Amino acid sequence: MSCKIGILGLGTVGTGVAKILLDPEGRHPVLREIEIKSVGVRSLSTKRDVDLPASYYTNNLESIVNDPDIEIIVELIGGLEPARSLILQAIANGKHVVTANKAVLARYGAEIFTAAKANGVYVMLEASVGGGIPIIQALKQALGANRIAAVTGIINGTTNYILSRMHQEGGAFEDILANAQALGYAEADPTADVDGYDAADKIAILASLAFGDRIKLDEIYREGIRNVTSIDIHWATELGFAIKLLGIARHAVVDGESGLDIRVHPTLIPITHPLASINGVTNAVTVAGDPIGEVVFSGPGAGSGATASAVVADIINVVAALKSGTGKINQLMGCSHQHYAKVHSVDSNKTQFYVRLIARDRPGVIGEIGMRFGKHLVNLESIIQKNSHGEFAEVVVVTKQVVERNFQTAIADIKNLDAIESIATVLRIL
Amino acid sequence: MSCKIGILGLGTVGTGVAKILLDPEGRHPVLREIEIKSVGVRSLSTKRDVDLPASYYTNNLESIVNDPDIEIIVELIGGLEPARSLILQAIANGKHVVTANKAVLARYGAEIFTAAKANGVYVMLEASVGGGIPIIQALKQALGANRIAAVTGIINGTTNYILSRMHQEGGAFEDILANAQALGYAEADPTADVDGYDAADKIAILASLAFGDRIKLDEIYREGIRNVTSIDIHWATELGFAIKLLGIARHAVVDGESGLDIRVHPTLIPITHPLASINGVTNAVTVAGDPIGEVVFSGPGAGSGATASAVVADIINVVAALKSGTGKINQLMGCSHQHYAKVHSVDSNKTQFYVRLIARDRPGVIGEIGMRFGKHLVNLESIIQKNSHGEFAEVVVVTKQVVERNFQTAIADIKNLDAIESIATVLRIL
Repeated sequence: MSCKIGILGLGTVGTGVAKILLDPEGRHPVLREIEIKSVGVRSLSTKRDVDLPASYYTNNLESIVNDPDIEIIVELIGGLEPARSLILQAIANGKHVVTANKAVLARYGAEIFTAAKANGVYVMLEASVGGGIPIIQALKQALGANRIAAVTGIINGTTNYILSRMHQEGGAFEDILANAQALGYAEADPTADVDGYDAADKIAILASLAFGDRIKLDEIYREGIRNVTSIDIHWATELGFAIKLLGIARHAVVDGESGLDIRVHPTLIPITHPLASINGVTNAVTVAGDPIGEVVFSGPGAGSGATASAVVADIINVVAALKSGTGKINQLMGCSHQHYAKVHSVDSNKTQFYVRLIARDRPGVIGEIGMRFGKHLVNLESIIQKNSHGEFAEVVVVTKQVVERNFQTAIADIKNLDAIESIATVLRIL
Repeated sequence: MSCKIGILGLGTVGTGVAKILLDPEGRHPVLREIEIKSVGVRSLSTKRDVDLPASYYTNNLESIVNDPDIEIIVELIGGLEPARSLILQAIANGKHVVTANKAVLARYGAEIFTAAKANGVYVMLEASVGGGIPIIQALKQALGANRIAAVTGIINGTTNYILSRMHQEGGAFEDILANAQALGYAEADPTADVDGYDAADKIAILASLAFGDRIKLDEIYREGIRNVTSIDIHWATELGFAIKLLGIARHAVVDGESGLDIRVHPTLIPITHPLASINGVTNAVTVAGDPIGEVVFSGPGAGSGATASAVVADIINVVAALKSGTGKINQLMGCSHQHYAKVHSVDSNKTQFYVRLIARDRPGVIGEIGMRFGKHLVNLESIIQKNSHGEFAEVVVVTKQVVERNFQTAIADIKNLDAIESIATVLRIL
């Protein structure tokens, strides 16, 4: 007997999902046991790029989550409401949920997974991070033998596209953003992408799966790419780095307390690092753990086909589990987190920094800068002075791994030096 | 109630598995529900690097597969016999099997999976390909929405280590092999690795999962890396390629017939390709499909920790499925192939070639070579002549995608030309 599903939302991903389900030839045989019963859309009059009878469509989304025939709800409308309410209603009705909605999961995950547990249903989220890359299943089912040390990823395609072009062309952020918007690689309102909100949602989801605890979104340090200049791209290249917007979540012990160091920011990564060669809209995630070492997953982070592949993977995993199951949730597919992770404040973490300063071009400046860093326990790897412009010169400092609080104190101190015109850029190094 | 397992073989991987199971803190909670009951070893007197009571050990491996208390057999003895017989006996006794044994799976997969299906048990094989990289689960469970077009991988660490060093150092194959043997990166008898047998076993496994059909090992075209010279490495680099030993399995239509093009050989790949930067003992696999596009998985392809991570992942997946299951096999975790794939003969496939010839250094040679290729319908991308050594010169030809049969006929014809001293190297291009 086939399993009936209801799809909420028929945008690009929803259309991709429907196309796969309507054309199972050559794909996994389980697909033939899945039947679309209803599709919830905003407008019934919109012309659709998928071959479904008109009777399948409804603009009454609640009727779908309340339909007793439907076993799985596929939520693809995005945004917070009504997505959250529809998901919760579906769960309350004993339906399994497959969603690509990272925003709702990152904000209401605790509420949603608590309800899912109470109702004995699956909430599947492969499509919420990394598009088609099967990183969620890897963390839930394939890497469970490991103690995870860190999850690090390029998880926002728009910013990676912009930064890749800045590296290739040497252009300015604003110009390339404008061009990316014209080409459809960036939204008209680019805030969610370029200011790191989207990446923060995604690293919250990855961290909760990797470390087995819930994450409060507002505890994630977040910094976007607006302040990355072509000058910094040039310096990074010269120093042997690429600049990428990374989501980073790692286990860290601060003052004897075990917890997570979790953040999103533009990051200098050594060009030999596997993430350094991930360009354009491609996403990639590395997972480091004991005893596995490090594994890397990369692929298309967005797009109709890739995201639909992940959504349908979740659907077939639920269907296969239901067909062989007692009704009890499979522990690896379910989500049983009940506690919030201890997230260390960003200033207590140890990080390596890159700083570009504009200094007066006179003897002793490098010495002064070096002294101030030293005074605040910030060990340095290198100080380079060049590119003299009249009375000013650029000084680029690379620190060792230092406690961020010490570094920030040192920077505040250095800023007040008579020899310093400005602190142009501060970036972190992986 | 905990699930009892028996481990056959306590070499590096078996020891790694036991260590994970004995130290579950910080790993997936399901691990706490798994109990090692017996460990089968060759010698009871060998000192072991793992903390298990002496009473757990036995050198009677059959007693483990016949123990009614044990639900899962973890086969890590390797080789063909007694591994095959013990696996079949365990299956006959209704036990699930987790194995890292690519050799036995590639040769006796049909027999083993037929028995598993008849007995309603799982045979799990994550550790058989790519060490810790979760490529098997990805193909079985995460990419099922796709029609797979191709699976391409660096799946033998020893050859990748040797070729990487040839690229970095410019040394000869024999010298680097000898050094790799001294360092423990290559076996005393390197045949299985350098002649491509190990990679053929692994691509057979990957292809059967990706395309849903059984593969006959002797239908895989196989060529090792012994004939790759430092001169070819140099040429490849100059032309913008890296040389890697690849396992390739792709869907192909030949004379209207759908089938697989499946092979193992040293391959020139463009340096911008994601596999080109995979160096040393690291493994990587790309999967291309519709609608996902291409995803890439990379990580440690061997070693105690990485392989143990994969073995334990399989164990916890079986345990979780059993705990929530009716006893019926989960379709995504099981293996239901019943037919053999149509594998096209290598000479009917379309491939791009690199050829290095030693020719007499006289006018008209390039024209003669070009004419002969053209006569046999082999279109060329480039012919380069240089490195004159007295009366001889090197000529390097890069073809377009051509039917291999035509190419081989052309080469046989060219070999007989008076102007040709020898065909030094023929390599394929990805």
